[in-house]
Amino acid sequence: MATAGKVIKCKAAVAWEPNKPLVIEEVEVAPPQANEIRIKIVATAVCHTDLHQILENTHEDCFPTVLGHEAAGIVESVGPGVTEYKPGDKVIPLFIAQCRECRFCKSPRTNQCDKAWLFPESRFTCRGKKVLQFSGTSTFSEYTVVNQMAVAKIDPAAPLDKVCLIGCGICTGYGAAVNTAKVEPGSTCAVFGLGAVGLAAVMGCQAAGAKRIIAVDINPEKAEKAKVFGATDFVNPKDHSKPISQVLSEMTDGGVDFSLECVGSVAVMRSALESCVKGWGVSVIVGWTDLEDFSARPLQLIAGRTWKGSVFGGFKGRDDVPGMVKAYMDKKLKVDEFITHNMTLDQVNDAIELMKHGKCIRTVLNVSPQ
Amino acid sequence: MATAGKVIKCKAAVAWEPNKPLVIEEVEVAPPQANEIRIKIVATAVCHTDLHQILENTHEDCFPTVLGHEAAGIVESVGPGVTEYKPGDKVIPLFIAQCRECRFCKSPRTNQCDKAWLFPESRFTCRGKKVLQFSGTSTFSEYTVVNQMAVAKIDPAAPLDKVCLIGCGICTGYGAAVNTAKVEPGSTCAVFGLGAVGLAAVMGCQAAGAKRIIAVDINPEKAEKAKVFGATDFVNPKDHSKPISQVLSEMTDGGVDFSLECVGSVAVMRSALESCVKGWGVSVIVGWTDLEDFSARPLQLIAGRTWKGSVFGGFKGRDDVPGMVKAYMDKKLKVDEFITHNMTLDQVNDAIELMKHGKCIRTVLNVSPQ
Repeated sequence: MATAGKVIKCKAAVAWEPNKPLVIEEVEVAPPQANEIRIKIVATAVCHTDLHQILENTHEDCFPTVLGHEAAGIVESVGPGVTEYKPGDKVIPLFIAQCRECRFCKSPRTNQCDKAWLFPESRFTCRGKKVLQFSGTSTFSEYTVVNQMAVAKIDPAAPLDKVCLIGCGICTGYGAAVNTAKVEPGSTCAVFGLGAVGLAAVMGCQAAGAKRIIAVDINPEKAEKAKVFGATDFVNPKDHSKPISQVLSEMTDGGVDFSLECVGSVAVMRSALESCVKGWGVSVIVGWTDLEDFSARPLQLIAGRTWKGSVFGGFKGRDDVPGMVKAYMDKKLKVDEFITHNMTLDQVNDAIELMKHGKCIRTVLNVSPQ
Repeated sequence: MATAGKVIKCKAAVAWEPNKPLVIEEVEVAPPQANEIRIKIVATAVCHTDLHQILENTHEDCFPTVLGHEAAGIVESVGPGVTEYKPGDKVIPLFIAQCRECRFCKSPRTNQCDKAWLFPESRFTCRGKKVLQFSGTSTFSEYTVVNQMAVAKIDPAAPLDKVCLIGCGICTGYGAAVNTAKVEPGSTCAVFGLGAVGLAAVMGCQAAGAKRIIAVDINPEKAEKAKVFGATDFVNPKDHSKPISQVLSEMTDGGVDFSLECVGSVAVMRSALESCVKGWGVSVIVGWTDLEDFSARPLQLIAGRTWKGSVFGGFKGRDDVPGMVKAYMDKKLKVDEFITHNMTLDQVNDAIELMKHGKCIRTVLNVSPQ
C-alpha cells in the first residue's frame, strides 16, 4: 500500500469544544504502532453516545476530539505484532475491546474485558495540536487508528454502509434482550424508548420468542416503526394519567416478565423496574447515563425482581460481531430498516441535529468509497 | 381436645401503640374458621422485623396487635376444610403463605404467592377490643390462629425451642445465598451485617461451596461468631478510612462474586452492590426496609452487575421448611449456634431490648410447654 508507514492527511470532523458544531478539518493520522491497525472508514453512523459526549460531557480536557464509534471500514495498514488482520480486510471497530486474555474475556458470562476502557494513545493531530481519540474508535474520520483488540473482522461481502450499525446500536439493544435479559419464549416484554437501541431490543425480544412485546415511547411516530421490528403493542405514556408501570401492570395482569430501558433516563429506569411482575421480572438498563443515581424502593427487589445492565448487549466484539454480520447477510437480522437517512461526513452536524430532535432512527454517513 | 370449638383465654404480649413496651395480657383466641388452624405456640424468637413494626411503623391503625412471626408450635384444633393438618401436628407458622394454586406457587422460580400478604381476619380480642394479627402469624401468644396456607408441618421429633428459628431468620439468610444469589462453588462472597440473617447467609455461602466468605459488621464482637458459621475473613468498615467497597475490591482483586446485604440500610445496599466485581457480580438485598429508596450509579449495573432481592430466602414455606428442619435434625444445618438467650414470654420486652442494642443473636422465648 502506498500509504503504509506514512502519515495520512485526510478529512475528519473535529469537536473542538463542548456544545459546539463539529468542524470538518484536515487531520494527520500517524501510522499504526505496535498492535495497532489503521482503518479507512467507509461508513459511520451517528449514535446518541456521540451526542452525550458533546452535550453532557463538559470536561474541557476531553477536547479536541474526533467522535464516532458505530462504523465499518477496510484495513489500510497494520503495526508490528498484528497477525490476525491484513490490509484489505473488512472490519468493524469496537468501542469495547476484547483482549481474549483477561479473566473477563475467558469467562463466557461477560464482555467486560479488563482492557475495555484502556484506550490507546491518539494518532490524530490537527493544526499542530494533538486531537484525542474517542471510545477507542473515532470514526468521524476518513482514517483512524485502533488497537487490534478493538477490531472485528467481518464477511468481505458485507455492505459496509449497512453493517456499520452492528458496531453499536443493534448489538446493544438486541444483545440486551437475548444475552442480558435472556428473554424467554412465550414471555411478555416491554421496551422503553424506541431509538435504534430500543428497536433492536424489540427485535431481540422477538428473536427470543416473546409472545407479547409492548413498545413504549412518548413519540407517537415511533409506533409504526416498532411494529416493523416485532412489537405487538405500542403505549404512549402521555396518553395515560396513571403511571406507565400501572398501565403496563393492568395490560399484563401484574407486570411484564422482561423490561428494557433504552432511554438513559433514571426516571425511566425506575418505571421499567416497576413495570415488571413480582417473583421473576427482570429489568435491564440499556440506556447510558452516569450523571445521576437510579433508584427504587427496596421492596421492588425484595419481591423477587432482578435489575441488570449491559454494555454492547453483552456481546464479545471480536467473537460475536462477525456472527451478527452473518445473521444480517442470511436475512435473520434486520439492519436496513434502521437507516432513515444517508448523508456524507461533511453533513455530520445535520445528522446530529436530526438525532437531537428525534427525527431519525439512524443516519449513515458515507465517509470513503469502498 | 377439650378446647376445640371454644374460645381460648390465654396469655399474649400485646403492642397497644407504637414505640411502647409490649404488655402481657389475657387475650381471647376464637376458634379457627374455614381453612384455619389454631396453634399452641411452644417457642417463639424475636426478630428485627418485629422491632421494625414497633419502632418504624407509626400508623396508629396497625395497633393494637400481637407481634411475633418466628415460632414453632403444635396444632390445637382445625377449622372446616383443613385436611392436611390435625391436632397434635408439630408446625411452623409462615409469614409468607403458599397457596399452591396461583401462578407464582406453580412456578419453581419464586415463593411470591399471590396470597402471601392477604392475611386472615384476626381471631384475637383483649379487654373487649379487636387485636390485629401481625404477618399472618402473631406468635407472641400462647395460642394463635393461622390460615392453613401459612403452616408448615414438620418432623414430630424436632425440638420446637430450636427449630422455631427456621420460621424466619435462618431461611431468609440461608436461602438468599443458595436460592437467590445462587452462590457458586469456589466463589468469593461478602455478607454485610451479622445478625441471625447475616450469619445464616454466611452459612448458606459455605453450604454452596464458596471459597472465601468475608463477613462485614461494624460490631467487632461479631467476628468470632461469623467464623462459627463459615466466614473466612472479618472486616469492620470502621477500621478503614476508605469506603468498604474499595477495601473489599482490594482484598479480592476487583470485587466479590456475590454480596448479601443483611442490614436493611439503603447505604449498605449501595456498598454491597459496589463491592461486587464487574461482569458477573450479584448483590442481593436481604435486609428489610421500605422507608427510603435504594440507589446507585447506572454504570454499576451497565458494567455487568446484577441486583436482586428475596423474602424468606426464596423458600416456598410449606414445601421447603420441613426439609430445612430435616437438615437440622441430620446435623447439616446449624440452628443451636444462633441462640444466645432463652427467656419466657413474660420477658419479651427484655428480649427486645437485647436485640435493639445488638446484644444477642437470637433470644428464644418459651411460651407453652411442649
